[in-house]
Amino acid sequence: MARLKGFQKLTLIDDALQKWLNVLQIKKPREVTVPLNEALNRVSATELTAKEDLPRFDKSAVDGYALKAQDTTGASQFKPVTFQITELAEVGSKQARQIWTGNPLPKGANAVVMIENTKKTDGKLEVWVQLATGGNVSKKGEDVKKAEKILEAGTRLTPYHLALLAAMGNSEVKVAEKPRIAIIATGNELAEAGNKPSGNQIFDSNRIMLAAMCRELGAEPVDLGIAKDDTAEIAEKLGIGLQKCDAVITTGGTSVGGLDLVPDVVNNSGKPGVVVHGLALRPAMPTAVAALDGKPVVILSGNPVAAVIGFEVFARLLICKMLGMKKTEPRPTVNAVMTRKVAAALGRRTFVRVRVTQKNGEFFAEPVSARGSGAISTMTRGNGFVIVPENREGVTEGEVVLVRLFGNVEEVN
Amino acid sequence: MARLKGFQKLTLIDDALQKWLNVLQIKKPREVTVPLNEALNRVSATELTAKEDLPRFDKSAVDGYALKAQDTTGASQFKPVTFQITELAEVGSKQARQIWTGNPLPKGANAVVMIENTKKTDGKLEVWVQLATGGNVSKKGEDVKKAEKILEAGTRLTPYHLALLAAMGNSEVKVAEKPRIAIIATGNELAEAGNKPSGNQIFDSNRIMLAAMCRELGAEPVDLGIAKDDTAEIAEKLGIGLQKCDAVITTGGTSVGGLDLVPDVVNNSGKPGVVVHGLALRPAMPTAVAALDGKPVVILSGNPVAAVIGFEVFARLLICKMLGMKKTEPRPTVNAVMTRKVAAALGRRTFVRVRVTQKNGEFFAEPVSARGSGAISTMTRGNGFVIVPENREGVTEGEVVLVRLFGNVEEVN
Repeated sequence: MARLKGFQKLTLIDDALQKWLNVLQIKKPREVTVPLNEALNRVSATELTAKEDLPRFDKSAVDGYALKAQDTTGASQFKPVTFQITELAEVGSKQARQIWTGNPLPKGANAVVMIENTKKTDGKLEVWVQLATGGNVSKKGEDVKKAEKILEAGTRLTPYHLALLAAMGNSEVKVAEKPRIAIIATGNELAEAGNKPSGNQIFDSNRIMLAAMCRELGAEPVDLGIAKDDTAEIAEKLGIGLQKCDAVITTGGTSVGGLDLVPDVVNNSGKPGVVVHGLALRPAMPTAVAALDGKPVVILSGNPVAAVIGFEVFARLLICKMLGMKKTEPRPTVNAVMTRKVAAALGRRTFVRVRVTQKNGEFFAEPVSARGSGAISTMTRGNGFVIVPENREGVTEGEVVLVRLFGNVEEVN
Repeated sequence: MARLKGFQKLTLIDDALQKWLNVLQIKKPREVTVPLNEALNRVSATELTAKEDLPRFDKSAVDGYALKAQDTTGASQFKPVTFQITELAEVGSKQARQIWTGNPLPKGANAVVMIENTKKTDGKLEVWVQLATGGNVSKKGEDVKKAEKILEAGTRLTPYHLALLAAMGNSEVKVAEKPRIAIIATGNELAEAGNKPSGNQIFDSNRIMLAAMCRELGAEPVDLGIAKDDTAEIAEKLGIGLQKCDAVITTGGTSVGGLDLVPDVVNNSGKPGVVVHGLALRPAMPTAVAALDGKPVVILSGNPVAAVIGFEVFARLLICKMLGMKKTEPRPTVNAVMTRKVAAALGRRTFVRVRVTQKNGEFFAEPVSARGSGAISTMTRGNGFVIVPENREGVTEGEVVLVRLFGNVEEVN
């Protein structure tokens, strides 16, 4: 019952992360090979180096005629230079050989004149422009040189990475297997969306949200449903989560009230159990982090916004590590001018929700009126966090702040 | 053969977009109903308003005791106020009734004291803190008021939208059906990745890339493979694309060379055909846009970077419109300091690839060395575009520019 006295001491976020990481055993992710057309947004499992130059040979960048650049000296539309058209393998002096985009440059040639800068008459070719050596030629290896690193392990694959891999002849890529994350909501008050809630019930919204947040990062959520505020029921779902998944996230039952059973259940389920409970974080103070036989457990508040922020601080880092990324994947950030001051608590890290807009290339951050800290609508009306550090009592009007974006920024007039 | 003379006139981007949109008939997207756990990143098809308040009743935000705030006046740890614990439906003067997070506030109470700020002895309750009216209470409707708009049509659904929908009792949502986009690559020089290329061949990388770009925006790519530079072969694939899909994207064969057959094939396949060919855009000048019986056709360069930029300008807008979004979805943008000057062509809109990094909260944009305009590695080494407008000859070193990001920004020391 000691917990009923409230949190004796709040742990600073950086200390909490360190303590937690010290007890986790996050292995290198298992590798899976997937075809390129299923690899978007997956995370590369291995470093790749180029097996050959790209392009593999000097090639024409245009449709036209391969020739010696030095033969075009002085050529213009008013003073064309005339070339002999050849079909021989080697291009000689004042000779031009037709070539299409992507074709290898024939021997003897060092430039390509675009077809629209020529005129063909009686087997001869008038050239109207002067070319430099290498003009309209894609040089062997100009995109990628043999043995150059083309992909680091732990890279989130964009369409452009897939293109580069395809251009080097790959049809598949080794990526990190998606970590499986069990999601458990606890609370007698929770009803399943789609059902009719009884008088006191509220619809559970955190499982759907946390599952989507896992998916966004490339993890596979495993929904274990709602547990009543009951030790045995929570313990059973936790056990299933630990057995079936690589990590467990719970939401609800983590404050210091009489029905806040989750930390105790976790402590009774293995070692070391809860390593930090009670954080210098606002909102999300009652968040706890734990490990059970090396498997991570993130114990989030039932308050939806606090759950988001606890996830943002702990689960985001966790999933990125499980995917083999070197750093926690950054959200897009932007510097914006605060339109109003916001107070924050000294000694806590405070996540202020703001709505960022862009006007004439400048960014402005308008604090989203709180309406109560549990209000999930602050996350749909807002699009970013201003993170006020522990040593600041707030941010002032007109101050330029770094905003971490979680939604699109609209341009306004 | 007129085209062999080159583009007579380059069309400005804004004019090209206008001309194209004038001939397209983009219908309101078909609606499909999906469960919330499959709705992440889909686009809402209808506006939604709240059917009731959220929360539906005044409820406790903490575990503790419901009471009248005015009875706690002057309470402190050194001077507790004593309350009678009651289990009656209505809380009277100097009475306190136990309550858990999420429970409705009992009649007569207007605040909740947190359990950790109390001590229970002999059926009585010592309260150590003074509360304001509404303290620790989530007021009915404080998150969302009945009849308030909770979702606009055309919104990209984040995890937080899904949470809000679930909190309002929804288990599914109406979203725009994914537009089906046919993708066709043309070129005799193209080999399928995974195969062994013959001497002159290069691996096709654009189909994989464009398909992934479609997927990123929420469209469904339909890969129609590679067509040789052959009128009949291109026409056949174009026909299949128009029949099976809502739009067609081609890549390659769109310059003014002898093998650039795509625009002619499109013109021979229906009305109005190509509406703009040859753009004041760098790279991606040979891009063309067309419509065939109202269906959009985007004719991209075979050069991978030009294909990206043609897609960025035309296909991105198209797909957003097909999804029913009110504006083209913005990429994240950031203001950054150019570390080097870059030249651009007056009269053209130029997309300069840069690598943005963040240092002490400031952003810097380093131009990615070109190595040839076809180099797809500039899109994996870079993470953003600086778009130089038509009336500028370039950007200067030290200038603050708006960067449109297509990759993660790293923090450096």
